[in-house]
Amino acid sequence: MLDDKKISKTSLDELGEFGLIEQIALRFPPKLTSTLQGIGDDAAVIDYKDEKTLVTSEIFIEGIHFRWDYMPLRHLGYKITMATASDLIAMNAKPQQLLVNIALSNRFTIEAVDEIYNGIKYACDQLKMDVVGGDTTSSTRGLCVSLTAIGSAKEEKILYRKGAKPKDLLVVTGDLGGAFLGLQVLEREAQVNKVNPNNQPDFSNYTYLIERQLKPQARIDILELLKELDVQPTSMIDISDGLSSEVLHLAKENGLGMNIYEEKIPLDPSTIRTAEEFNINPITCALSGGEDFELLFTIKQKDFDKIKGNPNFSIIGYVGEEKEGSFLITKGNEQKVPLVAQGWREQEA
Amino acid sequence: MLDDKKISKTSLDELGEFGLIEQIALRFPPKLTSTLQGIGDDAAVIDYKDEKTLVTSEIFIEGIHFRWDYMPLRHLGYKITMATASDLIAMNAKPQQLLVNIALSNRFTIEAVDEIYNGIKYACDQLKMDVVGGDTTSSTRGLCVSLTAIGSAKEEKILYRKGAKPKDLLVVTGDLGGAFLGLQVLEREAQVNKVNPNNQPDFSNYTYLIERQLKPQARIDILELLKELDVQPTSMIDISDGLSSEVLHLAKENGLGMNIYEEKIPLDPSTIRTAEEFNINPITCALSGGEDFELLFTIKQKDFDKIKGNPNFSIIGYVGEEKEGSFLITKGNEQKVPLVAQGWREQEA
Repeated sequence: MLDDKKISKTSLDELGEFGLIEQIALRFPPKLTSTLQGIGDDAAVIDYKDEKTLVTSEIFIEGIHFRWDYMPLRHLGYKITMATASDLIAMNAKPQQLLVNIALSNRFTIEAVDEIYNGIKYACDQLKMDVVGGDTTSSTRGLCVSLTAIGSAKEEKILYRKGAKPKDLLVVTGDLGGAFLGLQVLEREAQVNKVNPNNQPDFSNYTYLIERQLKPQARIDILELLKELDVQPTSMIDISDGLSSEVLHLAKENGLGMNIYEEKIPLDPSTIRTAEEFNINPITCALSGGEDFELLFTIKQKDFDKIKGNPNFSIIGYVGEEKEGSFLITKGNEQKVPLVAQGWREQEA
Repeated sequence: MLDDKKISKTSLDELGEFGLIEQIALRFPPKLTSTLQGIGDDAAVIDYKDEKTLVTSEIFIEGIHFRWDYMPLRHLGYKITMATASDLIAMNAKPQQLLVNIALSNRFTIEAVDEIYNGIKYACDQLKMDVVGGDTTSSTRGLCVSLTAIGSAKEEKILYRKGAKPKDLLVVTGDLGGAFLGLQVLEREAQVNKVNPNNQPDFSNYTYLIERQLKPQARIDILELLKELDVQPTSMIDISDGLSSEVLHLAKENGLGMNIYEEKIPLDPSTIRTAEEFNINPITCALSGGEDFELLFTIKQKDFDKIKGNPNFSIIGYVGEEKEGSFLITKGNEQKVPLVAQGWREQEA
């Protein structure tokens, strides 16, 4: 990826840490009124007036969370910013500030760091976030990025994982399993490239899936939509590890059981088609695939009519008692299969 | 270090990510009234009422910032927590919440992760901080820890790097250069251990220096002391990269020159003695050594009497105009040597 570039390559040592920080600071002048002090001091200073501060952080490791032979660094920066902001969105909070910690080996050039920051900037512009700080250092090997996203919300609007009640309905946004299949397509192509470096990949049949993998959207639009529809969910979580895991998280956190209907799980046509091509059940992609960054939430039954038929939402199941357990109900109500959580989520790298 | 332990070894895979997060959450129940939601949701929720939020983050990489053959993991956790909180303290803010991101290879056991968290907990107890979130993942190689510290301050009390005026006095807390020499002693011993694994190190002459390296104290006590003395510094920074770098940071940020007197730089007797043993100028250790986590600040001349003679403070120089430059004035006013900044600070690993 980087080797193909016809641009100059500057080593990190040449520019130095302080030079790099200056370059970064120039690209991220504070824009939000809540950012009193951005990059350039010991700490950033933030003012949310009468709102609460929300904060979340995630770490991304080369070879575990991404491989940059098929994840352009710009997309990497974009995606991890979206992934981190998604956690704030899942609390019904407005993402506002971002801190970026990067460690990278000498194999990376200044231009490579630039590309990561380009992606971060593009995502921040979309989400209207300020980059207000961070730390850049060398590593002995590989790339490691750790992001912290900070946001705000009025206390009564915050949506915790806890809050669901029996008989509530389970709702998901968008469609699921696409990001996982996008990864499969990219990995297959990487294997072909190993054998034939002159291979020209044709991704035209997989545009949607590859975009789901390389350029996922955190669903900040949904918060506005729920407000317009006057729906206040009772609990919410984002889908980063696959639907199964997240449903079980909500079930456990609320001390309840949760049941989802196989036939209600939203799948894009290209997800179904490509899953068949790879000989995988598309439902498995949705349940265990992860990285879709859609939202999973519960609503009161009285809100059913407000959401019913809206193309942004799928009502996929209902909340029961804890002793009843959590199940996938297969097509035609034929079978109840216990939902299973995943452990360490790792890409094969 | 870890291999010497007579305790069970549990692999990370065995416990799983969710099991690990649960174990961590149990050890860090929120204690502060400002922590509305700690570990266990998509994001933590914080409420500082009428104060501003301050936030800073740092990343620490094995082989760059530490080597755990002579940095016990408990000390590592402690030190990096202090180092990160130190940035908030340098803004005159109260450190309150911490987020911990850890990536580590399978070489590390659950007990090793435990040790890091033990050190983090010990530091957090001292600083009265809550751990409110974070992310734990595997890495292909080595250990990478990224910390985010969040704190609060009344707006009018925040101390920025900018704010110094010509004729202000430059003040440092404690003494300098000790942490760097502690590292030299530990590295020398590690070399001996390579040749003779049965070597029993005798650190009795270096207790203070090794403590400065392995168990540094962020100077939260100084904030209280300055309040008692009724001194409001005009600018402040913490000394993590060595005195030279930090003085130049303040000079640049304020568009001023800064001059320091060699004979005024505070050195512990064991720093002087051990520097001689290593054939290094102890002043060089103070100027370039780093990791002392003392505070450097400027005060108005009218506050001189309030600080004069206080054993916690050394008045080391004065602020001049930018065009005059920034210098070290050697003993007896003999020479003016331009201060030089460091680039990438790396331990030899």
